[in-house]
Amino acid sequence: MATLGIRFMRTAPAPPIMQSPPGPETVIDGRRYLYFGGTNYLGLAGHPEVIEAGCEAMRRYGVHTATSRAGFGNNPATLEVERRAAEFFDRQAAFYFVSGYVGNHILVQALAGQFDLVLADESAHYAIEEAARLAARPVARFPHCDPDGLEELLHQRLSSGDRPLVMTDGVFAATGDIAPLDEYVGVLGQYPQAGLLVDDAHGVATLGEHGRGTLEHFGLWGPSVNAEAAPGVRLYACGTLSKAVGGFGGILAGDRGFVERARSSSHYFDGASALPSAAAGATAKALEIVLGQPQLRQRLSANARRLRQGLRQLGFRTDDSPSPIVGLTLGSAENMQRIHRGLVRRDILVPYFSAYAGTASQGLLRIAVCAAHTDAMIDRLTDELGRLI
Amino acid sequence: MATLGIRFMRTAPAPPIMQSPPGPETVIDGRRYLYFGGTNYLGLAGHPEVIEAGCEAMRRYGVHTATSRAGFGNNPATLEVERRAAEFFDRQAAFYFVSGYVGNHILVQALAGQFDLVLADESAHYAIEEAARLAARPVARFPHCDPDGLEELLHQRLSSGDRPLVMTDGVFAATGDIAPLDEYVGVLGQYPQAGLLVDDAHGVATLGEHGRGTLEHFGLWGPSVNAEAAPGVRLYACGTLSKAVGGFGGILAGDRGFVERARSSSHYFDGASALPSAAAGATAKALEIVLGQPQLRQRLSANARRLRQGLRQLGFRTDDSPSPIVGLTLGSAENMQRIHRGLVRRDILVPYFSAYAGTASQGLLRIAVCAAHTDAMIDRLTDELGRLI
Repeated sequence: MATLGIRFMRTAPAPPIMQSPPGPETVIDGRRYLYFGGTNYLGLAGHPEVIEAGCEAMRRYGVHTATSRAGFGNNPATLEVERRAAEFFDRQAAFYFVSGYVGNHILVQALAGQFDLVLADESAHYAIEEAARLAARPVARFPHCDPDGLEELLHQRLSSGDRPLVMTDGVFAATGDIAPLDEYVGVLGQYPQAGLLVDDAHGVATLGEHGRGTLEHFGLWGPSVNAEAAPGVRLYACGTLSKAVGGFGGILAGDRGFVERARSSSHYFDGASALPSAAAGATAKALEIVLGQPQLRQRLSANARRLRQGLRQLGFRTDDSPSPIVGLTLGSAENMQRIHRGLVRRDILVPYFSAYAGTASQGLLRIAVCAAHTDAMIDRLTDELGRLI
Repeated sequence: MATLGIRFMRTAPAPPIMQSPPGPETVIDGRRYLYFGGTNYLGLAGHPEVIEAGCEAMRRYGVHTATSRAGFGNNPATLEVERRAAEFFDRQAAFYFVSGYVGNHILVQALAGQFDLVLADESAHYAIEEAARLAARPVARFPHCDPDGLEELLHQRLSSGDRPLVMTDGVFAATGDIAPLDEYVGVLGQYPQAGLLVDDAHGVATLGEHGRGTLEHFGLWGPSVNAEAAPGVRLYACGTLSKAVGGFGGILAGDRGFVERARSSSHYFDGASALPSAAAGATAKALEIVLGQPQLRQRLSANARRLRQGLRQLGFRTDDSPSPIVGLTLGSAENMQRIHRGLVRRDILVPYFSAYAGTASQGLLRIAVCAAHTDAMIDRLTDELGRLI
């Protein structure tokens, strides 16, 4: 198998094909790999109960309701996802939409007229970049994960009375970096009516005591997130149920008023088809498992720690972050491709990303652990990496 | 059951719940209705083979691949959808993405730098409106379905050398109006490098000899649609497999170069989760049925004709359009709500839309037929309507 990088795949004549559910072992192009790719962090995307719940919902309710949610497009599976998501996030209500990708777009529509300037992390995900452009406000970029850089930019760009909105990933997809949201809130506290909007696609169900994400990780989750009114810096968050949770679709949770506003100010509620019943059924079951088995998240954290410990023993500088993603930049692109291929020869798959939001110009090796990886699997990866570097 | 309009539902404390697959008869809130809502035009969203194919794909491949399509996110079900879609549209390749809603967005990204001014139908769907704003070009609106109005606007707004892009629905969701694409092409033919972009969500698999949509209906479908290079007015189209086809997800088909460009210029390919396996499996099977059973489309057309004939006998002015949607504006909002409730009492569901792209200020009753409606069902609707008006 050739080197497989995000950019590379676009022009490959025959893309690799995943022939099993994603898991700690995954079959790709007929070969079973010890797999450290993707976003199936809690390992539920291939869980038999999750899959059967999806099948049951589809049998009962059809492929989907074939109409928008604002008409007759709610079926019990969809509403169940929103009930469980509200429970998971400990908020009054939730809005379940077709893809986490459009969550920022939905939030920006809900916040129309409330901000004058958008400040986005320079490595923010494409989805944030696009939503920021839709906001029809000036967009400035601050240095990656740098509260001082943010503060400096605010001094430079903000006119008196301007209300700034900071937009960032909670956990960055390629590097695993966790945005210093607590420090951003500190900086923004100087400005009245400032806001912080977090796309927490990779933080939901991986970070925080209850898995509520990066804001909870910093002690910032609570009734003031996605609220109609709240004191201090306004906090907004969207996420996905497609990654750690193991289901499919985007999510935001907040108070009733705000969730209602998010539904009515975008058109994903009244102008788009409701989600597939199978996705909703699977997601509701996955949320039930995530709620009932906090040990999955504990196992994921332990695996993230073990991976980082192993990497430190190889001489890498990695901190003790609980993020399940480690982005390694190891010399040149050629060197990382060599390591990628070396691992592939040993039936270990660590994707090489040649270009993605937040990667260095030479790309990176992206290692993702999931809760279902055993200690032995993680040790095998670090052992083999040690031989190759 | 209270009057159910799109706007109304947003604030209703308890939304109606669809408890069966959508079909000619649909169970909502415990009651079986003769159902004339939604977009399940060929009646396949509840087809047992479609549902079982979705379940089989989910069992084999998990909820989804839990990574983007540019990495390892292709599974056989997803690729099968693209193969069958390319066959259905008679083009070299197809791009299958998470929702038809984002098709315009994807096309606009692919066409970045190729147009100077966007002209959108004033009743265009929200998805077109948003994509037009993302195009970062001036946007002007022309009168609904009016080629003369378009021509006038072009004269007013176009500077020498400007390349105009017209954006429109093929079939309008609420009214069922078919955009006069042939006349638009005539008007645009006067301008070098002009383009026409059609969101054919409701035209795909309902219009045209082979169901390729509104462009085929006007004899405009062919190798020059979604092509890297083509003589004359440039034609672009996106659609959905969630409505008439009975599957789930957005689609565009074209030549290899253009489809590759659509993938690489947006980030729905490399920056979003791949579609649920169940959606892909169900959609691939639905496409197989649509390809193998053209009689479904013939039946749909016959039903659309029968409905319009019945309405004409009641004194309505309706043409012989093959569109499966008829939007009826009958006096005041109150009068239409009265008719809606009267039908509901007779176990017939015709949604009242209080506000939607393209509706008059008082709203409309939206009647949609599907291939699975029998003559008797359609006659029952027109009979009861006759009693109520």
